[in-house]
Amino acid sequence: MNSSDGAFRDWSARCLEQLEAALSEWVPLSAPAGLGQAMRYAVLDGGKRLRPLLCLAAARALSGAPTSSAALRSACAVELIHAYSLVHDDMPCMDNDVLRRGKPTVHVAFGEAQALLAGDALQALAFELLTPEDGSVALPVQALLCQALARAAGHQGMAGGQAIDLAHVGLAMGEAALRDMHKRKTGAMLEVSVHMGALSAGADSHTLVLLQRYAQAIGLAFQVVDDILDVTADSATLGKTAGKDQANDKPTFVSLLGLDGAKAQTQVLWQEALQALDQAQLRDDGALRVLAQRVVQRDH
Amino acid sequence: MNSSDGAFRDWSARCLEQLEAALSEWVPLSAPAGLGQAMRYAVLDGGKRLRPLLCLAAARALSGAPTSSAALRSACAVELIHAYSLVHDDMPCMDNDVLRRGKPTVHVAFGEAQALLAGDALQALAFELLTPEDGSVALPVQALLCQALARAAGHQGMAGGQAIDLAHVGLAMGEAALRDMHKRKTGAMLEVSVHMGALSAGADSHTLVLLQRYAQAIGLAFQVVDDILDVTADSATLGKTAGKDQANDKPTFVSLLGLDGAKAQTQVLWQEALQALDQAQLRDDGALRVLAQRVVQRDH
Repeated sequence: MNSSDGAFRDWSARCLEQLEAALSEWVPLSAPAGLGQAMRYAVLDGGKRLRPLLCLAAARALSGAPTSSAALRSACAVELIHAYSLVHDDMPCMDNDVLRRGKPTVHVAFGEAQALLAGDALQALAFELLTPEDGSVALPVQALLCQALARAAGHQGMAGGQAIDLAHVGLAMGEAALRDMHKRKTGAMLEVSVHMGALSAGADSHTLVLLQRYAQAIGLAFQVVDDILDVTADSATLGKTAGKDQANDKPTFVSLLGLDGAKAQTQVLWQEALQALDQAQLRDDGALRVLAQRVVQRDH
Repeated sequence: MNSSDGAFRDWSARCLEQLEAALSEWVPLSAPAGLGQAMRYAVLDGGKRLRPLLCLAAARALSGAPTSSAALRSACAVELIHAYSLVHDDMPCMDNDVLRRGKPTVHVAFGEAQALLAGDALQALAFELLTPEDGSVALPVQALLCQALARAAGHQGMAGGQAIDLAHVGLAMGEAALRDMHKRKTGAMLEVSVHMGALSAGADSHTLVLLQRYAQAIGLAFQVVDDILDVTADSATLGKTAGKDQANDKPTFVSLLGLDGAKAQTQVLWQEALQALDQAQLRDDGALRVLAQRVVQRDH
């Protein structure tokens, strides 16, 4: 399977269809007083769905079977956490961004208070999805998935990374500190996406460790590419404001390593990810390989 | 056991000591870049701890045994959700409050961005507490606790109630709509506090239903008393700005039923709560009875 391969295209098209249908079913229009509209606006019809695809790709790599309820719920849960973080990140007191995925951001469209609540409700909904009351996911699996997601989303993971980011605007930052920040801010959620997909397919601890190595490498590569695109792409291609990090004087891998150094770094990380997959000897790691390639070669 | 009874005083003093110690241990100072300080400021040394006490009282009513890990973690988790909701509620885009529990609110003390992140991280931490990796809570119990908390905190519960509240500032609201709003906004978390305490002590479904009736009655009573205090108490006693709802032209039980009508309503709800306990025939419901009394008779 490679990026231009029909097998991957078919698989990802099928997954995206499942994901959109599931998100549309589970993000409730019925939530009161406009909250449902704001939640759906934040989640539906947008985004590359990289995290859920990583989750489903990891599940597929292990099981080979059609998507299980646990895997699909995990995939949607990581996307909800990602979506909520974007809603809050875009708010005036944070990045003050008005454009996201080519559309007005949630607080522009629905007001700041509703954006705040929608983000909060999306985080809770992620844990709802992981704990269905219909018996479709065994209770011990539900608990393990919640364990993993809570830690990735919270102070040790994404929220902690955002706090570091916030504290360093306009300040110098060494490569180790920058890596640590992104390991939490972006990496933790990419990593847990793979982890939850693997967990939902019953991965053993040896496989979980190798998949963690894969996920950590592409998690960091994702951020390096983000920094590269911030200086090389335009806003229309990105679907968000380009040049923003530079303008805000944020430390980035490009400001630290130079453009060529950053590009070389993505190649090293890509190879690390593929080596981890080689060692894991999974049933069908094709989708994981193509997703790694996409992370490194994406143009938005 | 009654409110002036040594047995309740001893029990609640012991519980509060346990709770403060557990929260101080579990809300991490180590969270990066000031996030830990903001999280701790939001949670420690403040609040009546009504939700965690209800949780521990329900567990005690069923088990009679010393506080279990599941009960203590549940108690702390509900307090973290409550604390995060206050942090976000106080922000300028919501209630724009500068005083909470007699101290500057989190966004005043730490800035809006850090307050937003601290709230987000506290919500994730609640689910972390419910899913310990040390084997102290059985995985199926972890799952049931996460199930309950996610639903109470999210769009069907607290966040949904806040959205209704937001949408009705300055608008008329009938009694049924006002009840529905508070059932979600305040009631859901009070209810789930009792529910999780009972779950953690292995309650059967019959008992859970009766305890739900108890919790719903005192949840509504809590809000009616809140509305009464908003017009009868001063800011120093409340530890927050009094008269705020009136000034903001928010619909309240006092504006709807009059002060005497609202007071009469609290007595009816109190009796409903006690009747549910009578029917449940629990091992030791003394603490639940005193807490119901405190909800109705509190002056702040």
